[in-house]
Amino acid sequence: MNYENTGRYLIPEEIEKRSFELIEAELKTQPDEELKPIIKRVIHTTADFDYAENLCFSDEVVKKALEAIKNGADIVTDTNMAKAGINKKSLARFGGEVHCFMADEDVALKAKERGVTRAVISMEKAAELNKSIIFAIGNAPTALIRLHELLQYRKIKPELIIGVPVGFVNVVEAKELIMETEVPYIVARGRKGGSNVAACICNALLYMIP
Amino acid sequence: MNYENTGRYLIPEEIEKRSFELIEAELKTQPDEELKPIIKRVIHTTADFDYAENLCFSDEVVKKALEAIKNGADIVTDTNMAKAGINKKSLARFGGEVHCFMADEDVALKAKERGVTRAVISMEKAAELNKSIIFAIGNAPTALIRLHELLQYRKIKPELIIGVPVGFVNVVEAKELIMETEVPYIVARGRKGGSNVAACICNALLYMIP
Repeated sequence: MNYENTGRYLIPEEIEKRSFELIEAELKTQPDEELKPIIKRVIHTTADFDYAENLCFSDEVVKKALEAIKNGADIVTDTNMAKAGINKKSLARFGGEVHCFMADEDVALKAKERGVTRAVISMEKAAELNKSIIFAIGNAPTALIRLHELLQYRKIKPELIIGVPVGFVNVVEAKELIMETEVPYIVARGRKGGSNVAACICNALLYMIP
Repeated sequence: MNYENTGRYLIPEEIEKRSFELIEAELKTQPDEELKPIIKRVIHTTADFDYAENLCFSDEVVKKALEAIKNGADIVTDTNMAKAGINKKSLARFGGEVHCFMADEDVALKAKERGVTRAVISMEKAAELNKSIIFAIGNAPTALIRLHELLQYRKIKPELIIGVPVGFVNVVEAKELIMETEVPYIVARGRKGGSNVAACICNALLYMIP
């Protein structure tokens, strides 16, 4: 097939630039400069300005996260959707990889045996990686609850927890748990979030590194 | 490692059931019975009740979509994230497959040559599949614009267009274009949507088939 260009197509870079300008103009309050690229990218991904209010950041989290990425931290996520959305090429520049253990056979088996979610077992598997890790949780509140326990047991020392599961049961509480710890975090307070939001926060961080 | 179960973990099926009950209870108006599973699943995926208002359905679209799936229709999406999220096992029961051409080398090459988006070329590639197709567009408004053109040229006859790209530039207009056609559609009117929403609408349809 062969079609004429209709001239109605903006290239993606132009669309993104114009979108970010529109978002900036519609923001009711201007966030800190270092947080802005994250907040704007999440709004870009969701068209939902609620994230301007509900995203919570621990002290100096951006600085710490960028440092971790530059030092080759891996990212562990709780969905293959988030894994598909993270810019793996950008991360690989620094030696990092993205993992999602949710579909692993050993994970499914252990979850069944112990009567817990696969997300719980996935977090335990991640704890055994013995690597510098950024957790990006966009789906399973049980992943956050297990991370909180692993923190209490001092079994993990993550560089960052991106806690943005979406949902109606256990989600709000699980996010609050993470914000009570000492771990660097980026959390979407309340019910909202998702795999797309988790991936997009990872990408926002990656794109902050020239 | 070995941990005690803390008893704080609901299994995913219980969480989902309870979530749908909460969503049902919080809906301000009750949608048509046949549309309800789709609307509720989108709210479940986003925790955003705006979708109760902005999802638009063409006449008898659910009946037509389920028929198409049962007859082995393929799904073509515009992101690998949506592809990752669609329940491919459920679709395979009826002989259907999920395609995403966005990362194909020939697509990238042609897009560059013609100065259009990869989404445009992906839609043209899909048109050549010569199969019964459901389009699930969660990201690129240019995909919808090209589908609209291909419909005008009578180059495609999709079973369904799920038009839920998210964004600030061209998105609102592209969705309206699709709703002006004769094609069966499910569209999230306005700026909101996303790969997660596209995948979730596909899954809602799949889960309606016993």
